[in-house]
Amino acid sequence: MSVQDLFGIELPILQAPMAGVQGSALAVAVSQAGGLGALPCAMLSPEAIRSELAAIRAGTDRPYNLNFFCHQPPAPDAAREAAWRATLGPYYREHAIDPATIAAGPGRAPFSAELADLIEAFRPPVVSFHFGLPSAELVARVKRWGARVLSSATTVDEARWLEARGVDAVIAQGLEAGGHRGMFLSADTDTQVGSFALLPQIVAAVKVPVIAAGGIADARGVRAALALGAAGVQIGTAYLLCPETTTSVLHRTAIGSDAARHTALTHLFTGRPARAIVNRLMRELGPLGANPPAFPLATAAIAPLRAAAEAAGAPDFSPLWCGQNASGCRAIPAGELTRLLAGQRGA
Amino acid sequence: MSVQDLFGIELPILQAPMAGVQGSALAVAVSQAGGLGALPCAMLSPEAIRSELAAIRAGTDRPYNLNFFCHQPPAPDAAREAAWRATLGPYYREHAIDPATIAAGPGRAPFSAELADLIEAFRPPVVSFHFGLPSAELVARVKRWGARVLSSATTVDEARWLEARGVDAVIAQGLEAGGHRGMFLSADTDTQVGSFALLPQIVAAVKVPVIAAGGIADARGVRAALALGAAGVQIGTAYLLCPETTTSVLHRTAIGSDAARHTALTHLFTGRPARAIVNRLMRELGPLGANPPAFPLATAAIAPLRAAAEAAGAPDFSPLWCGQNASGCRAIPAGELTRLLAGQRGA
Repeated sequence: MSVQDLFGIELPILQAPMAGVQGSALAVAVSQAGGLGALPCAMLSPEAIRSELAAIRAGTDRPYNLNFFCHQPPAPDAAREAAWRATLGPYYREHAIDPATIAAGPGRAPFSAELADLIEAFRPPVVSFHFGLPSAELVARVKRWGARVLSSATTVDEARWLEARGVDAVIAQGLEAGGHRGMFLSADTDTQVGSFALLPQIVAAVKVPVIAAGGIADARGVRAALALGAAGVQIGTAYLLCPETTTSVLHRTAIGSDAARHTALTHLFTGRPARAIVNRLMRELGPLGANPPAFPLATAAIAPLRAAAEAAGAPDFSPLWCGQNASGCRAIPAGELTRLLAGQRGA
Repeated sequence: MSVQDLFGIELPILQAPMAGVQGSALAVAVSQAGGLGALPCAMLSPEAIRSELAAIRAGTDRPYNLNFFCHQPPAPDAAREAAWRATLGPYYREHAIDPATIAAGPGRAPFSAELADLIEAFRPPVVSFHFGLPSAELVARVKRWGARVLSSATTVDEARWLEARGVDAVIAQGLEAGGHRGMFLSADTDTQVGSFALLPQIVAAVKVPVIAAGGIADARGVRAALALGAAGVQIGTAYLLCPETTTSVLHRTAIGSDAARHTALTHLFTGRPARAIVNRLMRELGPLGANPPAFPLATAAIAPLRAAAEAAGAPDFSPLWCGQNASGCRAIPAGELTRLLAGQRGA
């Protein structure tokens, strides 16, 4: 089944939810163009989720996707946190930051019964998860609303695990993808494979439709993914320069430069491996070096460094999320980009 | 220009040269089927190269590809070698091996004027290199014979570097590929990207034809690579079970099992990063752990461990070279596989 049939959309294009760089504006633009726009909820307060949902409802009557993380919140580990702050000590001194003043706080909340209560009234057409799935009870509740449920698989085992728990489609997240790896059955980054290897193996392993993600940047990439058996594609990086995003100027500059050709998986910004353009922090600590607190606790100690450096115009401590193929990034309206990705040249 | 036009072959399929697991038999079978068969020369003595070339000439009058490594032989480093043997010490004791009895020896010789002398009489139609290119003088000499010259690029920078030095086509080696990474401008494995990202970016960056490699396992993969702009594809892993290969039984067993879904880049077997199925040595030292001697010197100290373990039926120390997509491996004649890869179903 194609994603057009599955979601009731015109084009085989899903916009990847990208927490921190977009809100309802991008989702509305993509959905209005015939793709499936997405609202990343992981970093939004309940109030923000409600207002963003209202904005989507006001902006389009077409289907959209609400995305949530569903990690297990970690127990605080004072020793690990202290070691992490000690590792960052030279940077604090360089920026005249007193680590004692840094606020704790997770920053990213997993899906929960409270969030289900909040979104239920909106009857979201599609709900997607990252890092596996929430409890069976919560999944069943979302499905009872009539929502299609999606999640990302980074291995064949994860795809089978998701299918067994009732997802309506699996997103095959190839190693090329920007942002957080959806990996949840293994923490070993060597298990992560490129889209050319992952997609056909997942297509062969499950019966539900498979959505290709990772490295797809233009209409040729979309055609290639469909040739490999995908029911549709999910694209994030290509949208990062669109005017409907909130991508920072520093981030936009990096994406538009040769620097974007050198990304790496790093756990330094959040505690989980995610693909970003290599910057000073990644270079100096090693992208998977040091031993930051468990996701999402690593973020708090980085935040003041990021703020100080960004104020000085430096992306040294900013997570410059980006996939391995930024060649399709274009500073054009997201609706136009969506149509171009679908091969509609005269759009 | 398609590879069919470039090399005078019928199908857009190049068989990847795979040192250690194949000789002339595989090359002949693929070339006879209309693809471009390849003979890996890196681990062959001059006498063996000559006899294998004679076998190819006897077996087919169609084009074929001779492949050479072109690394800079490293200076021996006694301290590093001693540290490496110390790391392997527990394994030597476990297998009752006296490290003092281990022969040194590089095992893999780079292309040279002597090898050019040897192959000149055969006027090979295609000569390919791995790890960059030999000297400009040697490249010019090979081209004067009328041979097409190829080499692998793992980044956009490497593709441009190769084009500037006169290659007739660039092989875009995606991260998914099995065996040695062709990387030569950087030693940082984070620069290595998946085929979905690498191929279109190299296609956009160079004027010469680009051959896709890495993760392509079946006719759909071939079509996808062509959709991304490839002039043809190079496939290795899919051939590993063909009767014309010399793949060991242990290696075949691993490829045919779920173990093949977990590969990693490792430098433990040779000193350079190469993709292999994760086995005991990789698991215990870390695939890119320890600090083995520079390529190809790491091999000597592993050899007796490999021999002892293989004699006992264990692949614990064997380099189980394999790409990230072993789903297309089939124990059928290589000519038949070549036609299937090209989409000729009734072949």
